[in-house]
Order: sequence, then C-alpha cells, then structure tokens
Amino acid sequence: MMASPLSGRELQALDGFLATRSYLCGARPGRLDGEARARVPAAALTDEVPHLRRWFGHLSSWLPAELTAPPPDGLTLERALSAGREEARQQLDGELQRLAALRARLCSGDASDGDVSGASNTGKQRHESSRSAGAGGKLILKTAKGTRDFQPAQMALRERVFASIVETFKRHGAETIDTPVFELREVLTGKYGEDSKLIYDLKDQGGEILSLRYDLTVPFARYVAMNKISSIKRYQIAKVYRRDQPSQARGRYREFYQCDFDIAGSYDPMVPDAECVRIVAEILESLQLGTFVVKVNHRQILDGLFEVCGVPPDQFRSICSAVDKLDKSPWEEVKREMVEEKHLAPEVADRIGHYVKFSGGPELVDTLLKDSALAANKNVSAGLEAMRAFLGYCALYGVGGRVSFDLSLARGLDYYTGVIYEAVLEGGDVGSIAGGGRYDGLVGMFDPKGRSVPCVGVSIGIERLFAIMEARADKADQKVRTTETEVYVCSAQKGLMDERMKLLTTLWDANVKAEQSYKKNPKLLQQLQYCEDHGVPFAVILGESELQRGVVKLRHVATREETEVQRDQLVEVLRAKLAALG
Amino acid sequence: MMASPLSGRELQALDGFLATRSYLCGARPGRLDGEARARVPAAALTDEVPHLRRWFGHLSSWLPAELTAPPPDGLTLERALSAGREEARQQLDGELQRLAALRARLCSGDASDGDVSGASNTGKQRHESSRSAGAGGKLILKTAKGTRDFQPAQMALRERVFASIVETFKRHGAETIDTPVFELREVLTGKYGEDSKLIYDLKDQGGEILSLRYDLTVPFARYVAMNKISSIKRYQIAKVYRRDQPSQARGRYREFYQCDFDIAGSYDPMVPDAECVRIVAEILESLQLGTFVVKVNHRQILDGLFEVCGVPPDQFRSICSAVDKLDKSPWEEVKREMVEEKHLAPEVADRIGHYVKFSGGPELVDTLLKDSALAANKNVSAGLEAMRAFLGYCALYGVGGRVSFDLSLARGLDYYTGVIYEAVLEGGDVGSIAGGGRYDGLVGMFDPKGRSVPCVGVSIGIERLFAIMEARADKADQKVRTTETEVYVCSAQKGLMDERMKLLTTLWDANVKAEQSYKKNPKLLQQLQYCEDHGVPFAVILGESELQRGVVKLRHVATREETEVQRDQLVEVLRAKLAALG
Repeated sequence: MMASPLSGRELQALDGFLATRSYLCGARPGRLDGEARARVPAAALTDEVPHLRRWFGHLSSWLPAELTAPPPDGLTLERALSAGREEARQQLDGELQRLAALRARLCSGDASDGDVSGASNTGKQRHESSRSAGAGGKLILKTAKGTRDFQPAQMALRERVFASIVETFKRHGAETIDTPVFELREVLTGKYGEDSKLIYDLKDQGGEILSLRYDLTVPFARYVAMNKISSIKRYQIAKVYRRDQPSQARGRYREFYQCDFDIAGSYDPMVPDAECVRIVAEILESLQLGTFVVKVNHRQILDGLFEVCGVPPDQFRSICSAVDKLDKSPWEEVKREMVEEKHLAPEVADRIGHYVKFSGGPELVDTLLKDSALAANKNVSAGLEAMRAFLGYCALYGVGGRVSFDLSLARGLDYYTGVIYEAVLEGGDVGSIAGGGRYDGLVGMFDPKGRSVPCVGVSIGIERLFAIMEARADKADQKVRTTETEVYVCSAQKGLMDERMKLLTTLWDANVKAEQSYKKNPKLLQQLQYCEDHGVPFAVILGESELQRGVVKLRHVATREETEVQRDQLVEVLRAKLAALG
Repeated sequence: MMASPLSGRELQALDGFLATRSYLCGARPGRLDGEARARVPAAALTDEVPHLRRWFGHLSSWLPAELTAPPPDGLTLERALSAGREEARQQLDGELQRLAALRARLCSGDASDGDVSGASNTGKQRHESSRSAGAGGKLILKTAKGTRDFQPAQMALRERVFASIVETFKRHGAETIDTPVFELREVLTGKYGEDSKLIYDLKDQGGEILSLRYDLTVPFARYVAMNKISSIKRYQIAKVYRRDQPSQARGRYREFYQCDFDIAGSYDPMVPDAECVRIVAEILESLQLGTFVVKVNHRQILDGLFEVCGVPPDQFRSICSAVDKLDKSPWEEVKREMVEEKHLAPEVADRIGHYVKFSGGPELVDTLLKDSALAANKNVSAGLEAMRAFLGYCALYGVGGRVSFDLSLARGLDYYTGVIYEAVLEGGDVGSIAGGGRYDGLVGMFDPKGRSVPCVGVSIGIERLFAIMEARADKADQKVRTTETEVYVCSAQKGLMDERMKLLTTLWDANVKAEQSYKKNPKLLQQLQYCEDHGVPFAVILGESELQRGVVKLRHVATREETEVQRDQLVEVLRAKLAALG
C-alpha cells in the first residue's frame, strides 16, 4: 500500500498543497516528504504540476537517510492531499472566473470596461496569507543549497592564494576588470549548449530579463565587444553560478570562484598561447601542490582527425564531447557511447581509438606527419605546424618539460577554435586544476558588425586547489592565523582601561596592529590566553608601577620572555622585534 | 488624439503584445514606447496587466530624450494592439481550456485520469516560438540596468582603496568572512521595512526560494546565529543588490560594494562602539578626502526625547524617520511631514524641533541634563550617561575632535538600539560617507532559542568615496597605471623573438614583472611607445651586436637614458634601479 503510485487526481492535489509550501513537513524535508516522493511516478512530473515537480526535483538532492524528521502535529499525506485539493480547487475557480471575464472584455468591445483588476483579488489574498502562515515560527538557519559561508580561517587561506595568483598575473602585465554578477539573459543564451539549463535566472520583477553569470569568459567577450576593445590582457577573480547538483565530496558548489586570465587581440600565432602555459606553470609551482602536467591539443588537429577517420561533419562536436570523457572513462566505454548512443560506425570509432592513444612531446608532431593519411589532411597538417611552433615557444619559456601533447584532450566547450589546455596533478584523482584554450569566434558573436577579436585564456580551478590545500592543512593540523594583530595591550590591575586606550592610540597612530580586551577589567591570565589562542606575537602589560615609572612590560608570547621598555621607545622596540621574527 | 488614454480593452491588448517582448520597438525602447506610455493611465497598472506594468515601470528609468529611436519596419501602435489582442486571446483560450480540464478531473474522481499534461501544449509552444522570434538578430550590447563594468583604471583605484581600508581593519585585529550572494528569502523578510520591495528575487526554477542580498549586515547576523558564534570582529567587502531607481549623477547603482566592519559580543558598554568611530576616522584620514565630522546620537536618547515631547509610542519609528530627513530638508518641511502626514500635534512637533537643534561635544551631556524635563526621563538620563562614557572613550582614542553629538541624527534603519553614527565631509553635499550603529536584537531574530548577540558596526560608503576620488583624478588629469610591468623586452631587429622569450624567462624566474610584444617582428618605435603609454619604467633592448657581446641595452623610459648591462647582471641592476625609483 505504502508504495502504490498516486493517481493523477492525487498528484494534482499534492501539487496544490505544495503551491504554497517548500516541503510537506515544514521548513526542512522530512519523513513524510520521502514517503510521498516514493509514490510519485517520474513520468507524471509535467508542466501541469510545477510545484510538485519543483519539490520532487529538489528532494533528489537529499539523501534518503536525511529524510527522517517526523511530520509536525499529526500531518498525514491524506490530510495534505485533502487540503491541497481544496486549495487547488479554489485557485482554479478564481482563475477561471478571472480569465473568462478578461476574455469577454477583450473580444466584445469596451462595454464592460473600467477597473481592469477585480475578480481575482480575493483568490490572491488567500494565497498570500496561507503562504505567510506556512512560513511561521523561527527561521531556518541555513545557506542556500549548494552555497556556503567561508569562515575566517578559510578566508585567510583564500586571500593568500589569491594574492599569489594575482602576483603571477601582474608579473605578466595583466590588468583587471569587473563585470556585474548578472547579465541580460540574451548575453548567455546559446553559449553553453546543454549546460544552459544550469543557469540561474532572476525573477521578472519588471524591467529586464536577467540571469546570474555562468562563467567569466562570456561576460568578458561581451565586455570586449561592447567597449570596442581591440586588445587587452586581463585577469578576473569572481564568483560564478551554476544550478548543478552540488556535491561536497567532489567540491562542487553552486556558487564558486573562477580565476581567469585571457589575452585578446590579433597577434602572431601561438605567442600569447604559449604564455598562458607559462602562467599556469608559475601559479601551480608557487602553490607547491606537487608535480603537474599541462596536456595540450589543437581543435584543428581534432577536426582533421575526425575527417580522416570518417566522422560525418555534423557529428564533430558530439564525438569531440565523447573523446573528452577519456580522462575519466576507459576507451571501451567511450567507444560504446560513440557507436551505440551516437551511431558512429564501429570501424570509424576504432580509427579514432587508434589516434587518441598518442601523446608525447614535440617529436610527436613528426611522428604524426609520417602517417600519410594524416599528413594529407589540410586541417591536421596546419594544426601540427601550429603545434610545432607552440611547443617550441613553451620550451623557450622554460615549461617544455611540463607540457604533454595529447591527442585524447578534447575539452567540453563548443567555442574553442585552436589550442586547448588542461593541467592535472600527477598521481592524484582530483581531475583538472586548470584549463582553457583559444576562442577566436566568441567576441564576434556579440559585435553588431561581427568584428571578431581573437582570444586565448586559461581558468585556474581555484576551488579544487583550495580543497587540496585545506585538506593538507587539516591533515598537518596547521593552524591558520586569521588576524594580523602584532601586539595585545593588557592591564595587570583593575581600573586601567583608560591607560590601555591611550597606549592603543599611540600604537595605532604609529601603524602598529594592536588590540585590547573590550572588557573594562579583564583578568591578566585571560588576556594572555587570548594572545596564545590567536597567535598574537607580543603583549604589552600595563600596571600601576609601570605607569609611574613611564615604562611598559613587553612580553614575547611564545617564549614568555618579558622586558621593560621605556614608553616613548615602545614603537621602535616593537618594530625591531617584529622584524626579527620575520 | 495622440494623448488620449487607452481603453481597458486596448490596455489588455497592449499587455498581450508585451507578454513576449521587452519593448514595442525591438531590443531598446524607442519613440513608439514613449508615445504609447503617455497614453497609459497610471491607475490602470494593476495585477491584471503584469507585462504592461513591467514595461511601464521600466520605461520610467529612461529620460524622454532617450526615447527617440524610430519604430522598426512600419510598426504602429495600432498594429501592436491588434497583434497583442490576437495573441492574448489565443493565450486565454488555451488557459481556459486547460484549467477547465484540470478542474473537471480534480473534482470528479479519477475517470479522466492518465496523462496529467496535454491541453496547453500547443499554446505553450506557440508562446515560446513567438518569444524566440522576437529576440532575433544581433544581441544588445549593454549591462543590466543600474549595473556597470569597471574598467582597468577604475579597478586599479578600487584595489588601492580597498587595500588601504583592509589595512585599517587589520590594524584593529579584524578577520574576514564571506557569505553567498543569495540567501533564502525568509532570511531577508521583515528586516528592511518599506525597502523590502527593492530586494532582487531569483526565479523559482525548482528548489529553494532565494533572493540576492540587500546588505551585508543581515547575512552577518544570520552567520553569527547559524554558527553559534558568541564573539567576532569581522570585516566584509562585497557587492549588494537593490532594485532602486538608478542615478548615475547621484552615484546610485543597483549593484554596488559595501564595506562593513562589525564587532559582535557581550562586552562592557561603549568600548567597541568607540573603536568603530576611531576606525572610520583612520580610514577617512588615510584617504585624504578633506575635513570630516562623525555625527553621533543614541536611540535611547531619541526615544526618551519623544516620550518627553509627547509622541505616542507607536509613532516613535515613523517620527524617527522624519527626523532622519533633517540633514537634507529644513525643519519646516520635516515639521509639515510630522503634522500633516503623520498627524502629530503641532506643539509636540515644536518641542521636538526645539531639541533637535542641539549639537556639540561632551559638554552637551551636562547642558541637556540641566533640562529638568529631560533629566527626569529614564531613557534620556541613561542614554546621556552612556553617551558621556562613549564620548570620553572617543577622546582617549584621539578622535574626540572629530565627533559631534547631534540630536538631529536619527538613521533610517529600524534595527538600531543604541549609539548611531554618520560621517559627513565638511563643506560638501555628497551626503553621508559612512554610517552605522549598535543593533543588539538582530542576531536574536535568527537564533532558534532567541539567544541574542549584541553587535555594533559601521559601513563605509565606498561607492561615494570612489566617486569623489575618481572625479578628483579626472580633474587633475591624473593617469592611473593599470599594470605593474617593470620592464618591457624589446628587439631592435627582426628575427629576435626567440631571444626575447629567453630573456623574459630569466626575468620571470627572478620574479621581475616583464612583458614583450606579441608580434614576432615589432618595430622598435612601437615597442618604446608602448612603454610610454603604459608607464612601464624600463625597457631592455636586444640587438644582434648586444647578443654577440653578451650584453643588453637598458633604457630608462622617462629620461630615455640608456646603459649597457652584462646579461648576467641584468636582474641585479634592474632591481637596484627599480628600488631607486621607489
């Protein structure tokens, strides 16, 4: 009985119930939600039951084990259905009445003209009051699904890493820009293929139709076209938004940082392309994450390869996206996708399978040119010559040893037109930690005259890097300092807060980072404990006797060594001691 | 005839036309929009014509002078109305049919059960195809209304200012956190009073109901409650979102940065409160914007004052918000609002008018205590004693001279419970450039057990500060460097790109910020011009003769002075010369 599917009528009633409620069970999903969901046939989730569909889809992001909260005060599925049926009926009646009146006026002249609103007001009010009643009680304390707060320790690590990455970008002469977090929806339309369904839309509250940015590349291309820029070298570090299935284990969130570097402009072939590899290498080396390799390939070579193997031209993209899975799946599985799902002839797939095994250094260019079928193809031979120049420049930039020319690298995005890159850590299974390529057509998609600006760029997979570094810091039990306080001003007796304040003022005026307790009469031990807990290197201790003699006690927190310092020399002494700590 | 108002039927047809179009005239509003809008009576903008209302409201953010584009290929209002009427009728018929079928099934058992969708599919498809047809052609190149891109020069200024402000926050021992750009809508509900209508909502795409953050204070309070934090001193610099009427002239945007510092925790009275003033003063001094004053007041004093004057308790907030306008409007106008709009007795208003004239330093506390009516009121006397301590601490922190105790300061937000601040530049009319206060109740609104964490904080009006600084830089015709490149590697002859690349590699390895032209054979003059245009201080020039002799020419771009340097000494020489430039 439990698992019997709900009838169409019951589904409609459930939809009515969910029209004004996030879950059956209050502010969080619970047991009743899980039980009800098991009785909803997936085929029934049509446009006709939008609230049910929202609830159903949303519940799939909770594990069954999380759906245990008992329903509040005697709510049963039967009661919910009955309430939902009545609410849906009222809603429908109101709507039918309203639409019939509208149609009558629209089609029969202005006889019934006058107040344009009317009929539906009561229905709407009921709707709103039931919604606010449902919300009642204390608020849910959570961030939106797939998002998180960053604690001070996480922020301290992030800021250090961002600073180091920005330092690299600046070493290569890059400037930075900022674009709004949302764009007109049309700007994002038609850029991401299948993934467009992951775009966050804003509600239509009047005015324009907007969406949150999905990456930084498309807004950058819009910026270049809109400002009629012919060349720019820019970096941008900002959050992007994807309604993907979140997974903490895989470090996948719905709000996350991207960290992009791009060079736009018409230049000699492969010169900016090679610098991007150098930049990725500098960043990964500076973060000391271990040995890495930057896989490279060229879209023109892939296209030519597909021609040589006999892939129909209209299938290039879809076969490209199958090849792209080779870093996660074995060849057999990729072949099955090509043959069974994409209906490629098995012998064509096998020819592709032969070529995508190749990887190596600059010598691979010559090896491949010896294959007469490949050498005869214009795309392949042009792509290989481009790759020869590119690999040569990489060697001149001292990163030849980091680069692997890999025919199995394909990259998912449609807009790449030339070199493509992907950096991976060796011996790890964290996936790619940087990726990018050349996209010469994207800016032209925005320009009213189709004027195109060639671009090449890389995106650092900053969230994966953070996940690796946080895990290491945890493992090593390293405590990250979240403040930079250099000295804590303590009092040894009661009634000295005014004196602490005066001394603090002197220190702040001298640009020393200093704190005190916000209590009037804190205990000395507690003040010193604060220093140890927060890694404050020095404490200044004020007492009556010190005040009378115009001195302070300066304590090095780690060694507990104390020295007496003349007040007017305190700043100088502190600076010297801080410099000595490094 | 032109300006005759449209009939209800015509308005409905216009609504139908706008259901799938942003404007009448294509991708931007034009003349036809302006003419049609003039014929829409404001009273007709009800729930019944949502598309018309969106369009009408949105158009109000364009100046009449901007609505000049002629309509495309023969479109007239008559044609739009006729097309809209037909589209609306089809839509209504489809909807009526669909809802009737739903109601029949809902109320008459499961006889007609089965496929839950159906009837409306054709209607929906028509709707979508007409929408995508309307979008056709090239994209609109603009950012969303009320938002803007920041160019490299703007970003360079912003980054400098942010760094300086963060330096101040860190000098006071603050740590930083980050919260998501959107929150569950319930988190924001009931926090902003009337301004709630300015909140950006996300579209319900399944899952939770979300809104973009309106400020950083409410998410901070949610963070403190959710993480059960009892004390924290944090800063946060991030963008917030308000669907306000944008005004470039007044520097008001819909996406803008806030820059907040808050101290949460139970401490001795007024100690953190005074430090906030010190922080505001340090920041404004470091930015060298001119003389400023920090106005301060106390909500408890204001409440007591209203009691003494005879304001009914339920009007405290609304009278408070009237008083808040005193910085922009003369007393007569504020009094009129109190008496005419808020029905306060004129003699009560006059009593308020008497008191709000007072401002001064610590001596004002005693002056006010001499007023026996005030002194007898518990709120006033407690508030004044608190203010005495607060002003004393400000003096100890060396900012007594910056502070003005001002009974006319009220602040708009409801949630303040104690000290309130507002910093203004003297002799300017830019409005407040920082503001804040104590809000002891906000965290408790989120805590399931109502556990409250007292908070005090300030928000730096960073966008106003930027506007002032950008205007000054423009006026002084100062050119801001947007890159930090230290040396540009040039070649004097053709065929030397490989050599430039080798030298660049050496420089980057030594952590020198260096660039080259992305052209294989750039002209020397163009390379040197690039240095002058971009403020690059040094150029290294490679030629055949230098290469043979193992030297390079090092050119100081500003003076054009050239010296020959041994290649293996280049880094060292460069470092010394850069250090000498400072």
